[in-house]
Amino acid sequence: MAKRIKKSKPAGRKAASQGKPASEACAEMTEIVLPQDSNPLGYLLGGRVMHLVDIAAAIAAHRHSNSYVVTASVDYLDFRNPVRIGDLVILKSQVNRVFNTSMEVGVKVFSENILTASRRHTTSAYVTFVAIDQDTGAPKSVTPVIPHSSEEKRRYREALGRRKIRLAHRYKQK
Amino acid sequence: MAKRIKKSKPAGRKAASQGKPASEACAEMTEIVLPQDSNPLGYLLGGRVMHLVDIAAAIAAHRHSNSYVVTASVDYLDFRNPVRIGDLVILKSQVNRVFNTSMEVGVKVFSENILTASRRHTTSAYVTFVAIDQDTGAPKSVTPVIPHSSEEKRRYREALGRRKIRLAHRYKQK
Amino acid sequence: MAKRIKKSKPAGRKAASQGKPASEACAEMTEIVLPQDSNPLGYLLGGRVMHLVDIAAAIAAHRHSNSYVVTASVDYLDFRNPVRIGDLVILKSQVNRVFNTSMEVGVKVFSENILTASRRHTTSAYVTFVAIDQDTGAPKSVTPVIPHSSEEKRRYREALGRRKIRLAHRYKQK
Amino acid sequence: MAKRIKKSKPAGRKAASQGKPASEACAEMTEIVLPQDSNPLGYLLGGRVMHLVDIAAAIAAHRHSNSYVVTASVDYLDFRNPVRIGDLVILKSQVNRVFNTSMEVGVKVFSENILTASRRHTTSAYVTFVAIDQDTGAPKSVTPVIPHSSEEKRRYREALGRRKIRLAHRYKQK
Amino acid sequence: MAKRIKKSKPAGRKAASQGKPASEACAEMTEIVLPQDSNPLGYLLGGRVMHLVDIAAAIAAHRHSNSYVVTASVDYLDFRNPVRIGDLVILKSQVNRVFNTSMEVGVKVFSENILTASRRHTTSAYVTFVAIDQDTGAPKSVTPVIPHSSEEKRRYREALGRRKIRLAHRYKQK
Amino acid sequence: MAKRIKKSKPAGRKAASQGKPASEACAEMTEIVLPQDSNPLGYLLGGRVMHLVDIAAAIAAHRHSNSYVVTASVDYLDFRNPVRIGDLVILKSQVNRVFNTSMEVGVKVFSENILTASRRHTTSAYVTFVAIDQDTGAPKSVTPVIPHSSEEKRRYREALGRRKIRLAHRYKQK
Repeated sequence: MAKRIKKSKPAGRKAASQGKPASEACAEMTEIVLPQDSNPLGYLLGGRVMHLVDIAAAIAAHRHSNSYVVTASVDYLDFRNPVRIGDLVILKSQVNRVFNTSMEVGVKVFSENILTASRRHTTSAYVTFVAIDQDTGAPKSVTPVIPHSSEEKRRYREALGRRKIRLAHRYKQK
Repeated sequence: MAKRIKKSKPAGRKAASQGKPASEACAEMTEIVLPQDSNPLGYLLGGRVMHLVDIAAAIAAHRHSNSYVVTASVDYLDFRNPVRIGDLVILKSQVNRVFNTSMEVGVKVFSENILTASRRHTTSAYVTFVAIDQDTGAPKSVTPVIPHSSEEKRRYREALGRRKIRLAHRYKQK
Repeated sequence: MAKRIKKSKPAGRKAASQGKPASEACAEMTEIVLPQDSNPLGYLLGGRVMHLVDIAAAIAAHRHSNSYVVTASVDYLDFRNPVRIGDLVILKSQVNRVFNTSMEVGVKVFSENILTASRRHTTSAYVTFVAIDQDTGAPKSVTPVIPHSSEEKRRYREALGRRKIRLAHRYKQK
Repeated sequence: MAKRIKKSKPAGRKAASQGKPASEACAEMTEIVLPQDSNPLGYLLGGRVMHLVDIAAAIAAHRHSNSYVVTASVDYLDFRNPVRIGDLVILKSQVNRVFNTSMEVGVKVFSENILTASRRHTTSAYVTFVAIDQDTGAPKSVTPVIPHSSEEKRRYREALGRRKIRLAHRYKQK
Repeated sequence: MAKRIKKSKPAGRKAASQGKPASEACAEMTEIVLPQDSNPLGYLLGGRVMHLVDIAAAIAAHRHSNSYVVTASVDYLDFRNPVRIGDLVILKSQVNRVFNTSMEVGVKVFSENILTASRRHTTSAYVTFVAIDQDTGAPKSVTPVIPHSSEEKRRYREALGRRKIRLAHRYKQK
Repeated sequence: MAKRIKKSKPAGRKAASQGKPASEACAEMTEIVLPQDSNPLGYLLGGRVMHLVDIAAAIAAHRHSNSYVVTASVDYLDFRNPVRIGDLVILKSQVNRVFNTSMEVGVKVFSENILTASRRHTTSAYVTFVAIDQDTGAPKSVTPVIPHSSEEKRRYREALGRRKIRLAHRYKQK
């Protein structure tokens, strides 16, 4: 941790010219599901999960782009297991690939029962952000992601396919 | 309005046997974007929009099914125009079609500038809910939607295609 | 809907010279009562209802005046039926009449049981707003409301009587 | 303070038979106006003030009746001076009189500028509560208020006049 | 109350040269514990108590210094009695002593059961604030506290000992 | 990740007899500072930081004890660097040592500027929790922490000293 603090600034600067490793643009969030996040049946609200997904993804996007960002789109997501009051929600996000001024961020959401320690996969989501220049308010270009591990390379590769589907969607809806 | 109050209960009961008109299961929400909903650039948070989409859709699903519901999935959605502090957000939702225990709800989101009255389309979303029996907690079957207008019929027809894509998605991810 | 979007801007501009139809300055809000809005008995807090009344009324005032507004007063209101967690709350607001820089907005609040579809009248409220010039912060004059239906004409007429009672109140309290 | 803690329980019990002094059923709240409570112009939302009025009044009603309470009505109130982000809001409430199962509570609201220490009167409100039996959910009778100071006696006397106006209102609206 | 409003401004000005009485820089807050403040067991969250302690202390610091303030430190605090949904929380704060640009504020927290009127001591806390000049953002010096009662003198005296422990802590942690 | 999900349950069960490795009872939270968390100067509220510290610590305590917990105490903490709207807040927590029914949890808080990637240490805190049996509501004993790394052993050792100071504090205050 101490190491990261020390070197994070110069590393960020240097890396910006050719790209940044995928492993540097990630985030982890953990939340306790409180009564204020639940519906009358005691389940975590779907809309609250989506709100957390957006925030976890935005943090990874901020870290990769070192800029302000706005949410551009969210791909199909489903809720596979209900989450209840008192459970933990864990969100892990990582920038998969950059497309000039936009970034695809992958988010995995788990719930954890605090009494049994069992963990279940709630949902996976792909959120796209556009980096915004804080002076002009216009989109700005983002340094590329450099994938290293085979997992990161797979995500990088598949992000292109998802982007094509998104562009087709957008074209169709107009 | 008075008329609707008077007849809503018996109509609901009777309709439950063969189905309910699509026009009876809709909702309209309007919100003012306050500083607490915005990011540091003064834009409404994408995650907050998704939260509102989930609530607006859930209200239509409650009204059609007369039961508790949980969010099952949300289709691809994109944010076409940014919404700013002080703008109004308007959400309109309607149940498009029932698939045994689940319902597809369509939501349209607009923003409105209060000084110019100009309205812009922010996003459209399709949210799927499962009706829940409040005693057993298990899914329960939902009365069909009966589309009347040509617009309702188009939505009803297209909902089947979207469902096929969703099922393919879910199969692939497992 | 599409029609309204298209014509709303020019209509707003033109109407501003002589007045605007009452039917154009209204709003509808629907909310689900969540555990976070309730008191320890499971009822929706009275103060939360008042907060929603203020927002629903402000939206209608924004739409009629195309300006920022501040709440000036709220007339007597009573809560006739309790609202519970899981119920829907529906608020409908409409500008009744303009008095130079202020507007009287009427709000009707209903609750709806999602399992039975029965609707009950919770309260009716009259909220007065002052339009604010965003540059000077001073009150600004508001275009008149033009009532068309007999219901709108009745509201317009009765608003004058309520205003007299308000002025008497304010005079007495000083 | 220590004294109050020691004797509060037995005093409450004994007093319940004939009534309780007005001075025992009061509350004071102080809040800082944060950005999350404000509208886009930087003013405290009127609806947020009403929410605070309801809570401050409920606390006094709880203390007098030693029971759960629900808000029955709120009399006319106006906002005489705007409150801004960073100001303090001070609310003082006191039970004025009991009418069998209901209580009238008076609330005074002030704002205080932290840089100049100047205080301004924002509004005065009268809120009526009904005491609720927590087992049956039905209204329960409340021990009378015994006014001692001349100020308390004035409030006690005037509460009767306000109650007559409220009953007339309610009758008219049905 | 009326008296305080009238004289607060000139008194504040004059007093600023030599110091202000301890009795002028205090605050009282009362809150109802709502479901949204509780953990899944129905207890008020410890973190929520700390949040309220910070706000109650900040209000006293604002009033004494007539300036913006930021929290510098919080001494050890323990939670002696659990607080439950439906209880009242009462916070009383007072500036104990000034150390050039910083102030020590003492806060006592009680809970009160609304059905039995019994009050219990939840915690006591010492929070230190630094006054901030709103133009430069730098710390600014604060007028001294003048203790009058023997209780105020004891607090004033003991504050010095606590400050020494704080400085030792800070030195050690660096 | 997949590995952890698979084996977490049996590992938890077995470990409970002799103790659990310190590395298994930790949590990481990341938050974006939004306008709703800030004071009028644009700084993150100290009370909000304390709220986050309590939640991050509780998550580690939940994970170690597999039970519900309540906050017992918080040691002295100071805020070394201000955090601003738009910054990230990162909290890392870990159970240091168990004392029969209570646990000491260490929390480190950092802020991160999204535009420069520079990270600063905001505060370090020690929070003590008591594990609660969900049926009886009474404290229950907690399996010991087994420290492995030299860092974990140092924390384990030093936790004893801090506990002695806490006990002295509590004794003195009674």
